[in-house]
Amino acid sequence: MIYLDNSATTIPDESVVQSFKQVSEKYFANPSSIHELGADVERLQTKAREQAATLLQIDPSEIIFTSGGTEGNNLAIKGVALKYQGRGNHIITTEIEHASVYETCKSLEELGFTVTYLPVNSDGVVDVQMVRSAITNKTILISIMHVNNETGSIQPIEEIGEIAKKHPKLFFHVDAVQALGKVPLQLHHSGIDLCTFSGHKIHGLKGTGMLYIKKGTVLYPLFHGGNQEQGLRSGTENVAGNVSFVRALRLMMERKQKGYGHLQKIHQNLFNHLGKIDGVYINSSEHGAPHIMNVSVPGLKPEVVIHALFEKGIVISTQSACSSKQSDKSRVLDASGRSSVVSSSGLRISLSYDTSEKEIEIFIRTFTETIKHLKDILE
Amino acid sequence: MIYLDNSATTIPDESVVQSFKQVSEKYFANPSSIHELGADVERLQTKAREQAATLLQIDPSEIIFTSGGTEGNNLAIKGVALKYQGRGNHIITTEIEHASVYETCKSLEELGFTVTYLPVNSDGVVDVQMVRSAITNKTILISIMHVNNETGSIQPIEEIGEIAKKHPKLFFHVDAVQALGKVPLQLHHSGIDLCTFSGHKIHGLKGTGMLYIKKGTVLYPLFHGGNQEQGLRSGTENVAGNVSFVRALRLMMERKQKGYGHLQKIHQNLFNHLGKIDGVYINSSEHGAPHIMNVSVPGLKPEVVIHALFEKGIVISTQSACSSKQSDKSRVLDASGRSSVVSSSGLRISLSYDTSEKEIEIFIRTFTETIKHLKDILE
Repeated sequence: MIYLDNSATTIPDESVVQSFKQVSEKYFANPSSIHELGADVERLQTKAREQAATLLQIDPSEIIFTSGGTEGNNLAIKGVALKYQGRGNHIITTEIEHASVYETCKSLEELGFTVTYLPVNSDGVVDVQMVRSAITNKTILISIMHVNNETGSIQPIEEIGEIAKKHPKLFFHVDAVQALGKVPLQLHHSGIDLCTFSGHKIHGLKGTGMLYIKKGTVLYPLFHGGNQEQGLRSGTENVAGNVSFVRALRLMMERKQKGYGHLQKIHQNLFNHLGKIDGVYINSSEHGAPHIMNVSVPGLKPEVVIHALFEKGIVISTQSACSSKQSDKSRVLDASGRSSVVSSSGLRISLSYDTSEKEIEIFIRTFTETIKHLKDILE
Repeated sequence: MIYLDNSATTIPDESVVQSFKQVSEKYFANPSSIHELGADVERLQTKAREQAATLLQIDPSEIIFTSGGTEGNNLAIKGVALKYQGRGNHIITTEIEHASVYETCKSLEELGFTVTYLPVNSDGVVDVQMVRSAITNKTILISIMHVNNETGSIQPIEEIGEIAKKHPKLFFHVDAVQALGKVPLQLHHSGIDLCTFSGHKIHGLKGTGMLYIKKGTVLYPLFHGGNQEQGLRSGTENVAGNVSFVRALRLMMERKQKGYGHLQKIHQNLFNHLGKIDGVYINSSEHGAPHIMNVSVPGLKPEVVIHALFEKGIVISTQSACSSKQSDKSRVLDASGRSSVVSSSGLRISLSYDTSEKEIEIFIRTFTETIKHLKDILE
């Protein structure tokens, strides 16, 4: 099988699964228990937190372990909104955010917040000047993703961070779920107050994740209770999950050094070849993230292409997994100015550091044949 | 090691850990992906959900998988409060709820809700008549736990359910985290609208849990996003966690048949012996849940007793794990009318179906000796 749906989820690393198992078995106690078994578990988690902090060049106290990207995004956005509603009720985001940001903002509109959804250009990139202009004295939050999950477009996070720095009364949240371990992002001194990560997108486990919360940032917690995670995320810690997340993070960071160039090469290869196929339209930009490639084949239903490729042992997907069952049309492609036929026929090919050049060669050949064959019989 | 801190967390069943591992490895795809790998994972999860529904005699659509008890309690309470604030702003609960209910209610007071915290009698039980009297035309939620996590006191859930049935405009939530698989609870036709369960209290994994949501009940979700779990809990499903939870649930239900009588026998044994030790005060009621026994030794700091027992291979705890690091005084014992010296010297011995009579004999003997020894040297 050639698995090219890594932006939906990655294949968990064997050693990550193993570490989850070992911690579950050997460090089963509740880290909040005051006996020595509990203290051992607490220490293990502290060590993992310190390791993650070192890898991300942040302070251990700035790490909150979560159950995944959706929780992280919801905690960041609702946490700021509900905590600072007295200060202002305006939120700035974009039209191409992941559903866990976009729908969260929509839900806050129901609670009386006003949200500006910034447009993007045809490369799927937001205009920094527009971000600046959208800020009012009511703005309490800017939430903009780093790498788009459907097209791989990269937002100018550093520049937006500089703007955010000049407005100390607002918070800047970045959904970095698709970027982690692929596209570099500095958190320290970046203007970023909150940043979301997910385990299962980096060969970790589902149900694991992390939210970076810059020191001094206070949120209204989604989970109240026993005050775990500095009171920002109560509940008995999923220590095995948290330790496994940190291992996945470490492995990812190690692989990034060599792997980035490899991914870029494959990405360029995809660009060169897919663009030449008759009737195939490339939605991703050459300047986008190297692990996501989005193309449309107007006239062919994505599910038909996906199924045909699956029969040949190749797994690709359409849109984001989280939205794929709900709509034929991609909100992201739509916002990037694609026509209706293009945005309803998007296909996503998403890579990992495990993807080989050989696999991509096979994919390109098979994809070319499949599209030709389907067009021949269906058109 | 004699592990008697099962109400803080249980030792995960080997086959539960194994099932998590297998699903993580073999069913790694995103269940929302439209290709066949995703569909296989989706089917697996549907099967698990159906199995859980059968075990609990409810409908599969009434099950929302969560990351644990704290999430379940927060989702139920905040979900009702934020959704139905237009209908009313009054919540009824008790003074002895777990922190994840108690602190959630406290946090809602900050958002403008009014909360009635009902007292309990010296057995730690709420008066049904008081529940009835507390209801006003502004009441939207009653949240009362089934089994108390510190003393094991059992609340009259069935009778409160009958009251709730007569007030169709309010919702009745039960925190059944400590009760599941130990003290029977019928959900169907019970008047219960929401009921929280946790995996790691039933030999499942941390980071897993379930919320029963009666058909037709609508909540404001804590996690917005890709509309997983019927839109009530978005986020890529922790399928391995969910499948492992259902396995733990099944094993627990199977063991309940034989195990309940066994636990009752041990519980009675503890009652008979601990009550006779000089200076030991029993806080639990004979009518309480059979797996939790709370005693106080006024004059001895709980951590000293716990440490001394730990050195002899016995693990017990104080209060609830979730509150044990925050306060010397137990809110639950306080509310049950205990004096300050009693409520600040509580010790909890909590059992599982794995606890043997032999272990309890050793515990009783060691505990008796330890208390005598500590009193001799410290008093």
